[in-house]
Amino acid sequence: MALIVQKYGGTSVADLDRIRNVANRVIKTYDQGNDVVVILSAMAGITDSLIDLAQQITHYPEKRELDVLLATGEQTTAALLAMTLNAMNYPAQSLLGHQAEVVTDCTFGNARIMDIGATRIKEFLANRSIVVVAGFQGCDTNGNITTLGRGGSDTSAVAIAAAIKADICEIYTDVNGVYTTDPNICSDAKKIDRISYEEMLEMASLGAKVLQIRSVEFAKKYNVAVHVRSSFSEEEGTMVVNEDKSMERLVVSSVTVNKKEARITLIKVPDQPGVAAKIFSPISDAGINVDMIIQNRHSGKFNDLTFTVPTADFEQAMELARKIAAEINAEDVMGDTNIAKVSVIGVGMKNHSGVASRMFAALAAENINILMISTSEIRISCVISEKYAELAVRALHAEFKLDQLVAS
Amino acid sequence: MALIVQKYGGTSVADLDRIRNVANRVIKTYDQGNDVVVILSAMAGITDSLIDLAQQITHYPEKRELDVLLATGEQTTAALLAMTLNAMNYPAQSLLGHQAEVVTDCTFGNARIMDIGATRIKEFLANRSIVVVAGFQGCDTNGNITTLGRGGSDTSAVAIAAAIKADICEIYTDVNGVYTTDPNICSDAKKIDRISYEEMLEMASLGAKVLQIRSVEFAKKYNVAVHVRSSFSEEEGTMVVNEDKSMERLVVSSVTVNKKEARITLIKVPDQPGVAAKIFSPISDAGINVDMIIQNRHSGKFNDLTFTVPTADFEQAMELARKIAAEINAEDVMGDTNIAKVSVIGVGMKNHSGVASRMFAALAAENINILMISTSEIRISCVISEKYAELAVRALHAEFKLDQLVAS
Repeated sequence: MALIVQKYGGTSVADLDRIRNVANRVIKTYDQGNDVVVILSAMAGITDSLIDLAQQITHYPEKRELDVLLATGEQTTAALLAMTLNAMNYPAQSLLGHQAEVVTDCTFGNARIMDIGATRIKEFLANRSIVVVAGFQGCDTNGNITTLGRGGSDTSAVAIAAAIKADICEIYTDVNGVYTTDPNICSDAKKIDRISYEEMLEMASLGAKVLQIRSVEFAKKYNVAVHVRSSFSEEEGTMVVNEDKSMERLVVSSVTVNKKEARITLIKVPDQPGVAAKIFSPISDAGINVDMIIQNRHSGKFNDLTFTVPTADFEQAMELARKIAAEINAEDVMGDTNIAKVSVIGVGMKNHSGVASRMFAALAAENINILMISTSEIRISCVISEKYAELAVRALHAEFKLDQLVAS
Repeated sequence: MALIVQKYGGTSVADLDRIRNVANRVIKTYDQGNDVVVILSAMAGITDSLIDLAQQITHYPEKRELDVLLATGEQTTAALLAMTLNAMNYPAQSLLGHQAEVVTDCTFGNARIMDIGATRIKEFLANRSIVVVAGFQGCDTNGNITTLGRGGSDTSAVAIAAAIKADICEIYTDVNGVYTTDPNICSDAKKIDRISYEEMLEMASLGAKVLQIRSVEFAKKYNVAVHVRSSFSEEEGTMVVNEDKSMERLVVSSVTVNKKEARITLIKVPDQPGVAAKIFSPISDAGINVDMIIQNRHSGKFNDLTFTVPTADFEQAMELARKIAAEINAEDVMGDTNIAKVSVIGVGMKNHSGVASRMFAALAAENINILMISTSEIRISCVISEKYAELAVRALHAEFKLDQLVAS
């Protein structure tokens, strides 16, 4: 007898057959005596086609109105699942974001959850109803509809699990869990049984699409046990939980790769105070996220300054960089979109020295040149030439013996 | 400088081009210095396809959830129009039913508006914003989404017009206004310039689809001037207003026909107190609307009792009638689906005698037999054989000289 939150992604509710499949899973959990709250995404592809529709009107649709439009996607699946459960003689009620009191800030299109009231969720549960909540949406304190950004339903689920003090938050998706690396690149990739919030955060921020990064932040903050698993099989997936002793035995738990960044270098930047602000303020003002920044001494009173941006923003960032270079009397600007960032992640590396040098040596053994390096307490990332990306992932996966990972 | 409510139906917002057409009309009104509140239906066909989707799950979808599903239709068009107006550099905000505080009772699928707060409508208007409200939807006092039934957006529009004390409520549709009869049946049909609420109520209850009957009740109760007109032309339409002197000059203002009723007769019903209740209670309990009821003396202590029901409910009503007939010892039950009800309507007939006899004579002149008759203060209806329906309409239209109607 537990209180269980289950979140199903777009592929899991892509049509009425799959919604019936979800209903069967929900019923199974309910029939075991558990209370169940279900959070749903829109049907696969719907959010994209709604955005496409809006863009036929204008390239920059009013964000408030775009959220009103997008919110229909989750409203539809929530109603359909509640209907399906009722048709199967199970009591179920849908709730939209505002009805579940998912209160957010006013950042349309990328709102952050501030508070969840959940009064009606609790009322319905008290009557042994299955509660179906439209994910991805909330409302601001003025009652405007907001959406939480890509993957926002994950965050809806974890935040609601935290608000109602659920025993577990199950994230149902189209993969079996979190893997040591991308199985499409490395056939030796293994499913990870348990992973810490910190490692999952690093993986999410490195572009692993399994969970929205904010949902992991919420899970960590409110200590919500998250179970990432497939809606198409009965197999256990990956538990995302607090760091525990067993995890530390493993130095590195995963290898990730991101090819969607590009590199920009300003050559011979005069070594003066305030020059970094002059470079990065206009880029930040343009809404471009800079990831890595590295500064090297050039010669004399000059530095070379390199940074990475998302490939999608590369052209705009190059244009800005050229303008800035002229203003600050830098010699030249160089750009490179053919790069990849490979990273090794693991809470265990906090207690193990030499992880970086093992990583560098493994790449060197394959004759892969390292262009940039950045580190966090539990992560080391190297930027390399894009053509070596897969080779690097396999080499690192083997070096840290992730293919020998056994279920704990 | 007026406060104008404009309601656009499904065909007027059927695609992005037509939504742009609506935006242009709205802007024209706004640019003349008026405050504009727009009420929208769903795109033509959308409500039907959503119902179809729900019925793929079950023939009797949970009504609460069906309303959540259906409400997405108007949410979509409201967002798209607000987006279009913003893209054309006009300030516009959408509001859903609950955001506009359209409070209804809890009758899912056919809710009645109890109250309209309209706080945010007034706030937006005060900032010279165009307000786009999703029609057809509201919420009950528990915050559940409700819908107002077929044509409910008309009622949304008139009720909101009443709540904000609008100067006029314009109902944009795909016809030029209200006609003396169906132009598809009678090519001489003329557009009516002004019609009273009472006549419009009779027409709406007789199946004319121009306005939802409740919207006319609202308009009458709160004295809202309604202008029914086409969104595809600039032509003036029909004003629905309080009865005035000019209307009384016209004895009959329109002829209507309804082929969607069927007739059921119970033969030799014993003449006892309480027998009518025994007959009609079970039919009413089954949710079947009985329209006309006529009782004739049969012979001895027996009556024949005839009533009409919607064709869609005919089979079920026949079954009930047979059961009741057995219980009350009636001799037989007969049914007929090949009937039509033709009606003449006009506030003028209150002051003119002989309208009924002119109607009967006109039908007799065409050798049309009258099966049933019913009247109200401003209407006379005759049930005739369905095959004579068009002939009867044309004969009555000519008899009351509706083809000679001139614009007042």
